[in-house]
Amino acid sequence: MGLKIGILGATSYTGVELSRLLAFHPHVEIAFISSQTYAGKRLAEVFPEMKNIFDAVLLSPEDASQASAQCVFSCLPHAVSAQHLVPFIDKGIKIIDLSADFRLSDAGVYEKWYDTKHPRPELLSKAVYALSEIKRNEIQKASIIANPGCYPTSILLPLLPLLKNGAEVEGIVADSKSGVSGAGRTLKLTSHFVEANENLSPYSIGRKHRHIAEIDQELSIAAKKPVEITFCPHLVPISRGMLSTIYFRSNKNAQECAKIAEEFYANDPFVRVRTSSDLPTIRGVAYTNFCDIAFTQGANGLIIAVSAIDNLVKGASGQALQNMNISFGFEEQTGLLR
Amino acid sequence: MGLKIGILGATSYTGVELSRLLAFHPHVEIAFISSQTYAGKRLAEVFPEMKNIFDAVLLSPEDASQASAQCVFSCLPHAVSAQHLVPFIDKGIKIIDLSADFRLSDAGVYEKWYDTKHPRPELLSKAVYALSEIKRNEIQKASIIANPGCYPTSILLPLLPLLKNGAEVEGIVADSKSGVSGAGRTLKLTSHFVEANENLSPYSIGRKHRHIAEIDQELSIAAKKPVEITFCPHLVPISRGMLSTIYFRSNKNAQECAKIAEEFYANDPFVRVRTSSDLPTIRGVAYTNFCDIAFTQGANGLIIAVSAIDNLVKGASGQALQNMNISFGFEEQTGLLR
Amino acid sequence: MGLKIGILGATSYTGVELSRLLAFHPHVEIAFISSQTYAGKRLAEVFPEMKNIFDAVLLSPEDASQASAQCVFSCLPHAVSAQHLVPFIDKGIKIIDLSADFRLSDAGVYEKWYDTKHPRPELLSKAVYALSEIKRNEIQKASIIANPGCYPTSILLPLLPLLKNGAEVEGIVADSKSGVSGAGRTLKLTSHFVEANENLSPYSIGRKHRHIAEIDQELSIAAKKPVEITFCPHLVPISRGMLSTIYFRSNKNAQECAKIAEEFYANDPFVRVRTSSDLPTIRGVAYTNFCDIAFTQGANGLIIAVSAIDNLVKGASGQALQNMNISFGFEEQTGLLR
Amino acid sequence: MGLKIGILGATSYTGVELSRLLAFHPHVEIAFISSQTYAGKRLAEVFPEMKNIFDAVLLSPEDASQASAQCVFSCLPHAVSAQHLVPFIDKGIKIIDLSADFRLSDAGVYEKWYDTKHPRPELLSKAVYALSEIKRNEIQKASIIANPGCYPTSILLPLLPLLKNGAEVEGIVADSKSGVSGAGRTLKLTSHFVEANENLSPYSIGRKHRHIAEIDQELSIAAKKPVEITFCPHLVPISRGMLSTIYFRSNKNAQECAKIAEEFYANDPFVRVRTSSDLPTIRGVAYTNFCDIAFTQGANGLIIAVSAIDNLVKGASGQALQNMNISFGFEEQTGLLR
Repeated sequence: MGLKIGILGATSYTGVELSRLLAFHPHVEIAFISSQTYAGKRLAEVFPEMKNIFDAVLLSPEDASQASAQCVFSCLPHAVSAQHLVPFIDKGIKIIDLSADFRLSDAGVYEKWYDTKHPRPELLSKAVYALSEIKRNEIQKASIIANPGCYPTSILLPLLPLLKNGAEVEGIVADSKSGVSGAGRTLKLTSHFVEANENLSPYSIGRKHRHIAEIDQELSIAAKKPVEITFCPHLVPISRGMLSTIYFRSNKNAQECAKIAEEFYANDPFVRVRTSSDLPTIRGVAYTNFCDIAFTQGANGLIIAVSAIDNLVKGASGQALQNMNISFGFEEQTGLLR
Repeated sequence: MGLKIGILGATSYTGVELSRLLAFHPHVEIAFISSQTYAGKRLAEVFPEMKNIFDAVLLSPEDASQASAQCVFSCLPHAVSAQHLVPFIDKGIKIIDLSADFRLSDAGVYEKWYDTKHPRPELLSKAVYALSEIKRNEIQKASIIANPGCYPTSILLPLLPLLKNGAEVEGIVADSKSGVSGAGRTLKLTSHFVEANENLSPYSIGRKHRHIAEIDQELSIAAKKPVEITFCPHLVPISRGMLSTIYFRSNKNAQECAKIAEEFYANDPFVRVRTSSDLPTIRGVAYTNFCDIAFTQGANGLIIAVSAIDNLVKGASGQALQNMNISFGFEEQTGLLR
Repeated sequence: MGLKIGILGATSYTGVELSRLLAFHPHVEIAFISSQTYAGKRLAEVFPEMKNIFDAVLLSPEDASQASAQCVFSCLPHAVSAQHLVPFIDKGIKIIDLSADFRLSDAGVYEKWYDTKHPRPELLSKAVYALSEIKRNEIQKASIIANPGCYPTSILLPLLPLLKNGAEVEGIVADSKSGVSGAGRTLKLTSHFVEANENLSPYSIGRKHRHIAEIDQELSIAAKKPVEITFCPHLVPISRGMLSTIYFRSNKNAQECAKIAEEFYANDPFVRVRTSSDLPTIRGVAYTNFCDIAFTQGANGLIIAVSAIDNLVKGASGQALQNMNISFGFEEQTGLLR
Repeated sequence: MGLKIGILGATSYTGVELSRLLAFHPHVEIAFISSQTYAGKRLAEVFPEMKNIFDAVLLSPEDASQASAQCVFSCLPHAVSAQHLVPFIDKGIKIIDLSADFRLSDAGVYEKWYDTKHPRPELLSKAVYALSEIKRNEIQKASIIANPGCYPTSILLPLLPLLKNGAEVEGIVADSKSGVSGAGRTLKLTSHFVEANENLSPYSIGRKHRHIAEIDQELSIAAKKPVEITFCPHLVPISRGMLSTIYFRSNKNAQECAKIAEEFYANDPFVRVRTSSDLPTIRGVAYTNFCDIAFTQGANGLIIAVSAIDNLVKGASGQALQNMNISFGFEEQTGLLR
């Protein structure tokens, strides 16, 4: 009797996290889950921890496309995601896409960064870049909800309030550190235990990581001029969580930045502004939908922002559920406190 | 019959690492080891892994001060270190100090950052800031060898060749990530397993960490003008290793920086210049005396340097042994390859 | 307007876990929390992650003793716990003690293992050893609820159904592996990150660990004869979770044992009986109140039972809350699904 | 002009560990290294940490079969290993095989456990099961040296001295815990970081793991009657190291067992007998060739043996090098102290 939802790609780490969250949501009924690789198996065969929590047979993508739901989430990889969501969009069903496929408003930029043509570029203008705290109104109206990436969430939440307040934010460098679940469940050497453990490694640093496209896009809109950031992600030997240390020049000092953020997020349950003696940490947000933020002063007037999220929750499935709550008029925290 | 050396503070993590390295050094004889806390015990009672490797009764600091050696290492904390080394210095014995006590040439700067008066400020001018690859000649002549800090080693090795070549290096931001052994063996909540594990936390960020003093000092000398860096250390849930991601503006591009570094370190066995497709990682240097370095391009001409060391080896005991090799005319790699 | 509860020792790992669980329990109101060390501070100052979740000023033990509640939990260490709970017991308030103080029915056994006299030995006969699935009826009637230890929970849940069914269970060896949070938040060298990380160490093996007393007690009752187990705990470099591999001889084979357990726990939401091709793992139960169990065949007819729990949830605070639910007539799963 | 050796399968974890060890061995020259997957690449392209330590182009298996050496090590998987070693054996070259292919004297047992026919069963009787401390004399004479498995090494070293002394060792249960490198470098879900991290999982427990064959074989020889052990391996979230907790009944008590082991290993540099107040740990042996052993008393006369090794060193490449030292008359510790 609750809202009937479906999950495409339920056997990715974001997919199973979303399944768990939705299983305990009081106003939701999971109508179907799907998986290419594990179609026909039960979810608890793939993730034994789901036994007695939520279990259902995984549909094939084909069967899923015929299934009925009032809202469909996609935890599929980019390109594949749009392809499977379009039929639902065309039937007028609200979709929440955790991939990058509807995040960029410019199909050319999408093609450049993701090396593939968008299957339905005309839909891009209808999608909302759904950073919950920033786009609440647009999310309520949209039927294509593009859930932001994990790195962008951690970088945009501290910076956007400043830009929206007219503060200068120049020369941005984001040094981000992510847990290994961010790299997904697909086997690869960099996610192999012995390679990742007792290690810390930078990758795709400078102007190479795909998340740059959406970060630049949202910062440029807020700054009302083109912004290009320097972005250096690092892989950290933890399962979950992400911390971004962000450096920029501003006409505000750290204290003023903190005050702007505090006022901006005064009524937002999931953003906690901290102080420089109580800096965000990954442990402080792990397994929650919180984003913790703080501002400190560097040398020569430089500002340092620090933010922390759980990449699978606020950086993916938690924010997706928060967006569902916003979209369907449920209380925003429903199913997200634990 | 080898060089007789002594180790003060042998039961710290750097102390036991140094004991292990020296135990296998073919030209050295460990004449004594000391410890305040464990005086009277054997080293292998404190560190069971040292059984059958190197074991000796730990002298009290008082007994150590009467012991004879040709070279004395100190792994004691700052302030305590100088106090225990001065008697050896006064007897004309070469000392290699792993603490900060002889790193700063200006006693006022020392007092400001370390909150204590230096016991013998007139000795500071006789000490060498012993970054092995940079100060080889001075180390050969000096009798007070101040072993650099771990963070400074990782930050100075990539930057000094550029400055010494006359390149501009401006607006330096060092975002460093350190394993927990860097915080020492003294019990504290931030080093408690459950607090540090599955966590990543920034601390003393901006202009607060004591290592800033020596980094600014050495960069200012090389740049021939005052330099102040923004320095953000982070604690990473690994036992050993340190990676610094360093951002700066320059009149050279990343490729030119790499070329300068390569030529500068062409004959240095322990500095490996890597490329942006083969970035330094902590795993690549753990348990070795290597420092790996690479340069990449950021947005708007910004340069990104990445460097990695083992904080207990190149960042402490390994470099100390390397300095001993330089000082006493042994081949520089002796006892450091494993 | 919910059930008013208090928590003594709220700043231990079990205390903060319990605070988090109770904060989200729909029928509970946290009336007070206390702490010796942090009295006067807010909980979120000690555990920053509790900001916006549950925060309150920590009372001193003295002030807590005057506070009013319908049920008081104690997360204090043994000996201290009984001392602080007795006043509440004497006022007729239900208590749930997570320490060992009311687990043993024989004051002499308590004194032998815990090296201290029990302050009120006559209360021991009124207490229930509150293994939720085994003692549901007794828990409903008791006003002194002794929450079992983590190791005993993991060892008794697989074995008691067999003994209660009349099966032989002889020559028991329990080889248990525990995460470091089981050692508490008090600083000690074995819980120091660098010592525990990349390590695995046995401790108190054989007949030395205090949990033996309650395991022997409950097994002896069920077996109707004296039972003494061989118990070997090991410290594992993970934050949470516990796995016990238990060896014994029986007149039943592994398949029969599994069948008995399955039937015994058929209506228990938190015990999941698995198969030998789907063995319990710590990851499968972490952050939940589940206990996963399986049975396999060893050599020469030996039976191997494997069980896994989260030491802070089913092994401590989760089971305590489950016991509160049983005791106050709430649905048993309330507040425990997440 | 040292001993010319070759390494087949140099890009496995044991292969690169062996390359590193041999690179620093004073009497050895690495004549060739090979790899199926990475043929034509340099070793330091596959393992960047090997830069400036040891680097060479990896031969294809075909080219390796034509290469010349005085001793050939194989780090290939079973079945593949024998196939590639036979040509060298036939040329009269000494081989040291780290796979299981020459460990079992009975071709039928090999076929049963490894599900494949042995290519040259008649060679099995010429091979020595090369547990260095136990088979020193046989190793000196053999030209086919079968390096023991990691689990067997950790289980046999504590038990064999007892059996060889005529002590009873009955009802053996070995509960072993291994780091993830033991599962190799081949990608698989159980070695995926997010699956293995913060986890501990039993696998192949009872009578299923292939190492049972060689353990039973060696114990049966020493006991002069058929022995079958119960063997339960567990995967632990660490990179390296292995600890076995072994339970058995004996006519000797724990103290007597320790004494027998101490006398047996009195002249063995790499076996350290410890006490029950100084139990073996993984940290105590990691990155070394040591095997630490201790004995403790359980309930009802049961004996508990604990042993710890580094699975890649004493459990594989270190012991292989130790066997080479024995075989070629070098001092046994050469190249193994670090």
